[in-house]
Amino acid sequence: MTIKTILGSSDFAEFLRGKRGTFLLALSNTKTANIEGITQAGIPGMLHLTPTLDAEFVCTGEVRSLGTIAETPKGVPTPALITRAVHLLNPFGDIELLNLGLEVTPNVSYFTCHNFGITPSGSIEEGANINAQELFEKGVRFGQNYAPSGDYVILGESVPSGTTTATATALALGYDAMDKFSSSFRNAPKNIKSDVLQKALNLLETGDNLFEKVGKVGDNMLIFNAGFIMGSQSRDTKIILAGGTQMASVLLMVNSIAKHTAQSIDSTKISLCTTKWVFEDPNSDIKGLLEMLDFPISAYYADFDFSLTSHPALKLYDEGEAKEGVGAGGALMYASLNGVTKEEITRKVESFLQ
Amino acid sequence: MTIKTILGSSDFAEFLRGKRGTFLLALSNTKTANIEGITQAGIPGMLHLTPTLDAEFVCTGEVRSLGTIAETPKGVPTPALITRAVHLLNPFGDIELLNLGLEVTPNVSYFTCHNFGITPSGSIEEGANINAQELFEKGVRFGQNYAPSGDYVILGESVPSGTTTATATALALGYDAMDKFSSSFRNAPKNIKSDVLQKALNLLETGDNLFEKVGKVGDNMLIFNAGFIMGSQSRDTKIILAGGTQMASVLLMVNSIAKHTAQSIDSTKISLCTTKWVFEDPNSDIKGLLEMLDFPISAYYADFDFSLTSHPALKLYDEGEAKEGVGAGGALMYASLNGVTKEEITRKVESFLQ
Repeated sequence: MTIKTILGSSDFAEFLRGKRGTFLLALSNTKTANIEGITQAGIPGMLHLTPTLDAEFVCTGEVRSLGTIAETPKGVPTPALITRAVHLLNPFGDIELLNLGLEVTPNVSYFTCHNFGITPSGSIEEGANINAQELFEKGVRFGQNYAPSGDYVILGESVPSGTTTATATALALGYDAMDKFSSSFRNAPKNIKSDVLQKALNLLETGDNLFEKVGKVGDNMLIFNAGFIMGSQSRDTKIILAGGTQMASVLLMVNSIAKHTAQSIDSTKISLCTTKWVFEDPNSDIKGLLEMLDFPISAYYADFDFSLTSHPALKLYDEGEAKEGVGAGGALMYASLNGVTKEEITRKVESFLQ
Repeated sequence: MTIKTILGSSDFAEFLRGKRGTFLLALSNTKTANIEGITQAGIPGMLHLTPTLDAEFVCTGEVRSLGTIAETPKGVPTPALITRAVHLLNPFGDIELLNLGLEVTPNVSYFTCHNFGITPSGSIEEGANINAQELFEKGVRFGQNYAPSGDYVILGESVPSGTTTATATALALGYDAMDKFSSSFRNAPKNIKSDVLQKALNLLETGDNLFEKVGKVGDNMLIFNAGFIMGSQSRDTKIILAGGTQMASVLLMVNSIAKHTAQSIDSTKISLCTTKWVFEDPNSDIKGLLEMLDFPISAYYADFDFSLTSHPALKLYDEGEAKEGVGAGGALMYASLNGVTKEEITRKVESFLQ
């Protein structure tokens, strides 16, 4: 398993080889996920539990707030399995949770769960109803003050229907990004999604400022993390955005805010790492999204797939039914940077499904 | 793969088992390398690039300042392949570069490259023309102030024609070491080398002090690192000299300076680790060199060879065509101390040559 460069050079990744990463998992619920057919990241009727269960599983190997591991309707297991497998084979120095508006708090002790008094956001069909300026500032303050115990941060997320809100956010900010966003489906439900996006964008009014726009069509994860990254600029912390198009949308928001406020971004402190499934997805364009940024960015994907397994549920990843989430891409990069093999990860993930 | 003791006991090595090593790579050019036939460490006409390319390859896996991996005329690939393989299988905590007078700076970002304003040294045939006292003092100050991020330091080097300058240095300091030094050749070019050594030693004048002598016939790596080791005496840092007869020459210089200045050396903080190829080389005598020291020293070799490969370029190592460099011996020790197998290293090195 190697690390492939999407943009920039291999140096950011290589510099982190052998160093210890702190895994931060950003968790949020948006009522957008309740729209029939919008996402397959989770159990029907229990979608709101997905980030909670993902967090429990990554931290403890147990799904506590529900009996079984979150599966999509087609039986694709959550990418939390990949992240957990990496953590067992080459542990993160620390796992910490960011509660960015959860319906149900993860049932774990000892692990730091950062709380900011954030509530789940509304459906973007009717307006997410986020005080984006305030939320962004919470992110900034967190970034300014956060000192990870490890040498760098791997920032993952679990937000059901998060690609829809990420798309809406990029569009609301004026990026020509309609066909560049990923989905948890292979055959992304373009009709349902386009309808939702159209309704969301119709909520925007002339004169809305940047924060008013994303407060209507975004989600808490996107806005908080844009603040987190900008706040971290005052520190030496290196951050890997462990995700696909949602994390690209975070960067697009950073880009817009920086332009708006005439700040320059030192992007030598940040990079993005996603999965091969996102990179090769014909229905989205992670590279194209990142090329819209006004600052250069190092971006990678981990050259991992499930070609070494015959487990039907895992094979669905290689068929494009699931692609990324719960920091899977960044976790795979962490594994690769520490000598863990594709074979070892495959066997460990299989062991969870027995 | 095990670690064999050349001198002292196994305790120094065993104490470091499982700890995290910082790999420091000392890089320098001497015009001695331009003497026809003196070395085979590098590409003809491009010898001066060898340390630059070695550094790039160890850090990033890429050779940036030239298209292909540095090979000797007989097609022996650089020992940087071994060091890189170890770094992939069990990463060093950090890799840092010491620019001790390079023609071309390595093209890597993020990695710390310590610069001291040192220029390449001259050919020892006409005098290396090094201000050795000043250079030594730069090494001392670095050693006094350097705090590695890891638990200990593995100090490697890449200096084309460095065994010639190392031999000249030991002879100039009065050690009876003529036939104890290694070469990058199997059939070391004794005639060319003896001629160069004779010319170099003829430059010495009665009344030259220690620094004047090594400033004429040494190289920057030897002199700086002698200072580095002596400066480190004031700290708790443990240092593995990852190399063969060149690192032995560094220790001989430390020995001479310590005697000259009536300092005692606490050699419990230092050891030397080299390859099996150096240890078994019938044309040199690493043990004999270390036995000339007035202080006791723990010295080891890593019991690694290429018996598990059939790759012809790697087989040349086992035939004595290449022996050490770029910290290969110390890197192999680091691998062994962290459970990496001979088989794993062999396969990883092979993968670079496909």
